[in-house]
Amino acid sequence: MLSRDWSVPETDVLGAIHDACQSDRQAVLATIVRVEGSAYRRPGTKMLIDSDGDDVGSLTAGCLEDEVRSLATAVFKSGESRIERFDLSGDDDVWGLGIGCNGVIDILLEPLTDTFEPALRAFEDGENGTVITVLDSETEAFTRGDRTYYHDDAGEFHELVGTWPDDVLNRLKDPALTLATAGNAETVTVDILGSAVTLFCNGIAAPPKLVVFGTGYDAAPVVELARLAGFRVTVVGFRGAGTASDQFPDANRVVSSSPAQIRDALELDERTYAVVMSHNFVDDRLALEELVQSPVPYIGLMGPHKRFEEMLEAFADEDRTFTETELSSIYTPIGLDIGGSAPYQIAMSIVSEVLAVYNDRSPDHLRNRDAALHDRTEIVLDKQSQ
Amino acid sequence: MLSRDWSVPETDVLGAIHDACQSDRQAVLATIVRVEGSAYRRPGTKMLIDSDGDDVGSLTAGCLEDEVRSLATAVFKSGESRIERFDLSGDDDVWGLGIGCNGVIDILLEPLTDTFEPALRAFEDGENGTVITVLDSETEAFTRGDRTYYHDDAGEFHELVGTWPDDVLNRLKDPALTLATAGNAETVTVDILGSAVTLFCNGIAAPPKLVVFGTGYDAAPVVELARLAGFRVTVVGFRGAGTASDQFPDANRVVSSSPAQIRDALELDERTYAVVMSHNFVDDRLALEELVQSPVPYIGLMGPHKRFEEMLEAFADEDRTFTETELSSIYTPIGLDIGGSAPYQIAMSIVSEVLAVYNDRSPDHLRNRDAALHDRTEIVLDKQSQ
Repeated sequence: MLSRDWSVPETDVLGAIHDACQSDRQAVLATIVRVEGSAYRRPGTKMLIDSDGDDVGSLTAGCLEDEVRSLATAVFKSGESRIERFDLSGDDDVWGLGIGCNGVIDILLEPLTDTFEPALRAFEDGENGTVITVLDSETEAFTRGDRTYYHDDAGEFHELVGTWPDDVLNRLKDPALTLATAGNAETVTVDILGSAVTLFCNGIAAPPKLVVFGTGYDAAPVVELARLAGFRVTVVGFRGAGTASDQFPDANRVVSSSPAQIRDALELDERTYAVVMSHNFVDDRLALEELVQSPVPYIGLMGPHKRFEEMLEAFADEDRTFTETELSSIYTPIGLDIGGSAPYQIAMSIVSEVLAVYNDRSPDHLRNRDAALHDRTEIVLDKQSQ
Repeated sequence: MLSRDWSVPETDVLGAIHDACQSDRQAVLATIVRVEGSAYRRPGTKMLIDSDGDDVGSLTAGCLEDEVRSLATAVFKSGESRIERFDLSGDDDVWGLGIGCNGVIDILLEPLTDTFEPALRAFEDGENGTVITVLDSETEAFTRGDRTYYHDDAGEFHELVGTWPDDVLNRLKDPALTLATAGNAETVTVDILGSAVTLFCNGIAAPPKLVVFGTGYDAAPVVELARLAGFRVTVVGFRGAGTASDQFPDANRVVSSSPAQIRDALELDERTYAVVMSHNFVDDRLALEELVQSPVPYIGLMGPHKRFEEMLEAFADEDRTFTETELSSIYTPIGLDIGGSAPYQIAMSIVSEVLAVYNDRSPDHLRNRDAALHDRTEIVLDKQSQ
């Protein structure tokens, strides 16, 4: 169900880069490392250009990709990384004319090496990390392309290219952790023994997970849209229901479980979002009871409010009441109030709600939002590094 | 990009029924004609069962479809329409057990005939209509399956099966118009010369239209998701840009135009929703000026608020200012505030916003909504018919 290669979910772009890392194919990796002003995509956005001209991902809405492809050809020939600046603001004669992005975009092009492999493997494994790459250095101690990788789960750096003194890594640890968790990227210039070194700190957060409890016809559109929105999706069929067939080609995983045992069968952590839609009152109730005892921040329950009230009554009959905190994570009726009653419209309402909760947004119209469109991650380096 | 046949957009279900009407294939049409209590899908929902067992569309989340398929086999054999009641409420022993839909669903199964063809042709042509079918009658003047069709654009009825006295049609005209516009369906019992006749009034509203101005990489996910959400989608490339390639397989139409001439080139009516994302400041501005002079209720403009302010300044330089009414239809930054910066996440934010505006909803979480989940269309029949 995935679209053409230049507009695929981010998870698939990183997957393609990971595949290329592990293969013998020659490829060039293009990454947005800095944006001044506004641009369609943010720092950290990647595009992979294969030596045979295929590419995966895109850096803009198509404004720069042709130029990036020809630059990649030069990188294939020279084997040398390069940084290119594209001034899309109105004042620039070459790229500015009429495009109106008002942004200046710096793009790093580099021959793809296996130095990206550990970060991408961690991503596949559901772990966060930050790849730190030297863009420019005033000191010979560092060269463009020197790279270290901070692995969040392990809490330590892997030196991949170049020599990274311990005190530098110590100063980078907190920002690396912050960026890894947020999945944001920033370019910073640090002072190392009196010389300026410019680093691109590329936080790569593991994709959030969506678990869909239910294998009805209405589950497939939820799975499909959630995958497109960048979630790792697990479908859970109770007692094997619906899990044997090829009903969910878009799911990352289809498992069978019993509703009362989902906490044992699944890793329900604070990055897991749950959608309960088995259409079976008893099963939904059992699953709900398990989910409120887990750290999942979102439990979406399909069905009208009246059904949930009946569920609460059934719980009350067993002397089970819910705290405000438990209730706050339950979203029922599930979804954003965007109207529509067709399966894909309902699925869109659900996945939009999950995204809003994941991103901690209040799902109003963006034209009513006062804050900036994108959350930036402020990172603070110690005094010496400013 | 469309999913399996039992969870396809409504537009595709109706398209498949239309195809079957025009072919020699034998098929049974199953339609939800009445829901008491709550159910996943609403009256008017259709499922087509082919004589070779293929089906398109679904009536529930999979709870009843197997049974509907076997009933369809009986309809194939007998050639007779039938109405089946499924009691999914907790009190019923057969279907109620644990499912917890709390609903009673009546389903009409009928051999598909070309009596549905005019309504579906109108739908394809972007016109509204209401198909009125006799479900039960105490008088011999009507038989189950008698059918008339109200064509909104023509403002008149077509008698398709049975004899429909003028006074009956006159009484049905207003409700038929109301349901056609809303795309809602209701079953009503009317008194005809002292006898009760139960009619299923199935309003079929033409699908809303989305016009995407722009052919960048970011447009394809918008087109894909809008199609899944039930929109007819036209992509407009300015001066031929992007319109020659096979870049938009999901679009219903890809056309080339000039931004200043879109009102001539396109039918921009009150059922058309516009997304302006050419990424070209001048083109976007020209298109915006055309759109605010058209009756389109929604003009989504890609880009940060600052860009729109610059656009307003450019307009002001030409002494063009906008009224509050004009500004109210402009949504910029485009989309709902659900976070995310990847192309599909942005597309979901856009299509969710268009759905919310189309359905006149305030895009909060549904758990905060006081009103019923589904809008019902109240229809009033004259006194004699109550």
